[in-house]
Amino acid sequence: MRMVDLIIKKREGHALTREEIAFWINGYVKGEIPDYQVSAMNMAILFKGMTEEEVINLTDLMEHSGETLDLSNLKGVKVDKHSTGGVGDKTSLVLGPMVAACGATFAKLSGRGLGHTGGTLDKLESIPGLSIQVSGDRFINQVNELGIAIVGQTQSLVPADKKMYALRDVTGTVESIPLIAASVMSKKLAAGTDAILLDVTLGKGAFMKDINQARILARLMVKIGNGLKRDTRAVLSDMNEPLGLAVGNALEVKEAIAALHGNGPEDLMELCYKGGAVMLEQAKIAKSFEEGKAMLEKVIKDGSAFEKFVKMVKAQGGDTEYILHPEKFEVASKIVPIIAKEDGYVKELDALEIGLSSCRLGGGRETLEDTIDMSAGIMLVKKIGDQVKKGDVLCYLHTNKSDDVVKQEAETVYNAYSFTKDFVNKTQVVLEIIQ
Amino acid sequence: MRMVDLIIKKREGHALTREEIAFWINGYVKGEIPDYQVSAMNMAILFKGMTEEEVINLTDLMEHSGETLDLSNLKGVKVDKHSTGGVGDKTSLVLGPMVAACGATFAKLSGRGLGHTGGTLDKLESIPGLSIQVSGDRFINQVNELGIAIVGQTQSLVPADKKMYALRDVTGTVESIPLIAASVMSKKLAAGTDAILLDVTLGKGAFMKDINQARILARLMVKIGNGLKRDTRAVLSDMNEPLGLAVGNALEVKEAIAALHGNGPEDLMELCYKGGAVMLEQAKIAKSFEEGKAMLEKVIKDGSAFEKFVKMVKAQGGDTEYILHPEKFEVASKIVPIIAKEDGYVKELDALEIGLSSCRLGGGRETLEDTIDMSAGIMLVKKIGDQVKKGDVLCYLHTNKSDDVVKQEAETVYNAYSFTKDFVNKTQVVLEIIQ
Repeated sequence: MRMVDLIIKKREGHALTREEIAFWINGYVKGEIPDYQVSAMNMAILFKGMTEEEVINLTDLMEHSGETLDLSNLKGVKVDKHSTGGVGDKTSLVLGPMVAACGATFAKLSGRGLGHTGGTLDKLESIPGLSIQVSGDRFINQVNELGIAIVGQTQSLVPADKKMYALRDVTGTVESIPLIAASVMSKKLAAGTDAILLDVTLGKGAFMKDINQARILARLMVKIGNGLKRDTRAVLSDMNEPLGLAVGNALEVKEAIAALHGNGPEDLMELCYKGGAVMLEQAKIAKSFEEGKAMLEKVIKDGSAFEKFVKMVKAQGGDTEYILHPEKFEVASKIVPIIAKEDGYVKELDALEIGLSSCRLGGGRETLEDTIDMSAGIMLVKKIGDQVKKGDVLCYLHTNKSDDVVKQEAETVYNAYSFTKDFVNKTQVVLEIIQ
Repeated sequence: MRMVDLIIKKREGHALTREEIAFWINGYVKGEIPDYQVSAMNMAILFKGMTEEEVINLTDLMEHSGETLDLSNLKGVKVDKHSTGGVGDKTSLVLGPMVAACGATFAKLSGRGLGHTGGTLDKLESIPGLSIQVSGDRFINQVNELGIAIVGQTQSLVPADKKMYALRDVTGTVESIPLIAASVMSKKLAAGTDAILLDVTLGKGAFMKDINQARILARLMVKIGNGLKRDTRAVLSDMNEPLGLAVGNALEVKEAIAALHGNGPEDLMELCYKGGAVMLEQAKIAKSFEEGKAMLEKVIKDGSAFEKFVKMVKAQGGDTEYILHPEKFEVASKIVPIIAKEDGYVKELDALEIGLSSCRLGGGRETLEDTIDMSAGIMLVKKIGDQVKKGDVLCYLHTNKSDDVVKQEAETVYNAYSFTKDFVNKTQVVLEIIQ
């Protein structure tokens, strides 16, 4: 078998067999197939697509390109959740403790933020002392004892995806739905849970710009997961504006804490209740979506979801005083209000621009080597559908950067808003549930 | 500027500017842009194409990626000829001396054969003593004195094409018309002649399988050449069956010698007369196609074309006794007739199969490291349109290979023929002239 013949076969629009995909992926991981052939293959896939069978085979072979986690000795149904990325997305920090408090086993391997999207690991690390580097045994023990752990992905999982993603990033082949689906799902499958809930975001701040593309991706990932024997479901969620009001690491943790007390922004709570209800069905703890929702409301009300979060932070070495007294989190030296210049309703609030601006204010990184200012970010006051009067505060920039940066970002953030005189509906976050 | 952005731009179907193409090609030659980005770019070009302006810029920048030959001090209009490859194609060996005998300056850098297509250099090297490695000064002197030289391409010309072609060959991106056109034309332009005649072959034994594709490629190359200030014209020629009767290095040289004596096969002579007439117009020696043809007929009749060939062979160190007495060429140890099993007319004779079989009989190479048996090949007796009776010889295999190989190839070659009971027209070689 020769890689060039497989590239030509794909280029001509034919489906690759499992053996052919195995030749490619195994050869690539071993270093026998060079990057320049894989980048040509990826570009051919970007143009010609893959059948469902091909994507399932690709995912399975990528999953098994390195170690996989064996969670079979853990009690109960293990559930995981993955978002395709967004701005202000602290869902896992709220949803995880909620479903764990209901009795599900939430075992999540998470990632870092890059560019305009934040990462759950970075958010967790804004809690002093907390470690996301939890070794395999300790991870399993923690999950067994607490029913929840959110930790960093180990290097030995899915080496094929690591190599391939780095290559796609510099060769213009990120935007291929089969390759995105195989990348996400190979990592989720290797992490060993029984059930997976996918949050496929769409809109300005998301990777998928329109609902049709997002739906295709979500359905494909659900097919892959179920094809490979895991109960996989997806929610399509709106990411035209940021999720919740806080954007930036410590700011988002504080918002997550508020949410666990039942005081979260409406859109964040909607996503946690609906996503959580699906997960409780997947975990076979709730018999219906409605029953799941009622259970989730109960663990918020009685404080057990918050308690679960505190225990997780403690287990991972974090200082729980910060969780109990969020006012202890370090605050940025500059908090700058952005003021409305006209009356009206917020029509749009560009999540991408807000995410990028938060990043430049110190809250994110452009390359994986950059360090993050945990206190930096943006606190929104007005979101889509809110009425605004001239002079109102739209949002606050939190930063330790120079006045020049502040001036620049104040303008960017203001321009991320657009206004209209007409009444505007608030955003519904969960657009569809695919199962 | 970042290469990944240029890949994405092309992937989205936009045209690259001259500056962008320069960034790519110059960076690639310097080793600053890696193969894996160029292979992704090439695949995107394969799917999305290039505008004429893009291809002209690409060709120009590739041409100037290394040294170029300066032939401006040579007298007269310098002409070159290039074929996109075929089976039995000894045209340059006949056409070159013919136009040189008419007073044109024929300065050709040529290549080696690979796979089913032969190369002019290999054919010339079947003449004992002849060298195709002629240094720049000696090349110019020979062209000045004799009006003709056919030599190997130096390593310093068009390094961008060398790197890119090797990459395309292993990444499934050979079959892109803009990339083929830029590759061919950058080499022809770097060789420094004033005028270029392209022989774009089409059919079973050619790279282009149908006339529409061949016409698109030919027109594009003519546009590139003229856009870059060289008089460029093209003939479209049929390569469904081999050209002439001889396939294999020494066999083809003997056929070329016969053709220079006026005894060549009809199709070869047609291509030489028509292509040559266009070249004499390009060289401004003939005022019309018809005048050019008459001049060419004269130099065949009076022996001056043959004389020119003898002088070229002598100048390049070849033993002219072989040219004067072609029976001196070594003959293969086995000459095996292939016999017709039925009556009828030859309907098809697959040039690709004949070329591949000749290669396996010892007459070609599969990799550039293989050595060639100069005496090996196939002498055709019957071609398309010929009437055949059961028991007639269709062709002869010439080989020094084992009987097993002979048995296998006898079957392959027989199957390369197909027959019909109905009358079949002979092939017209020159299908179109594009200028």
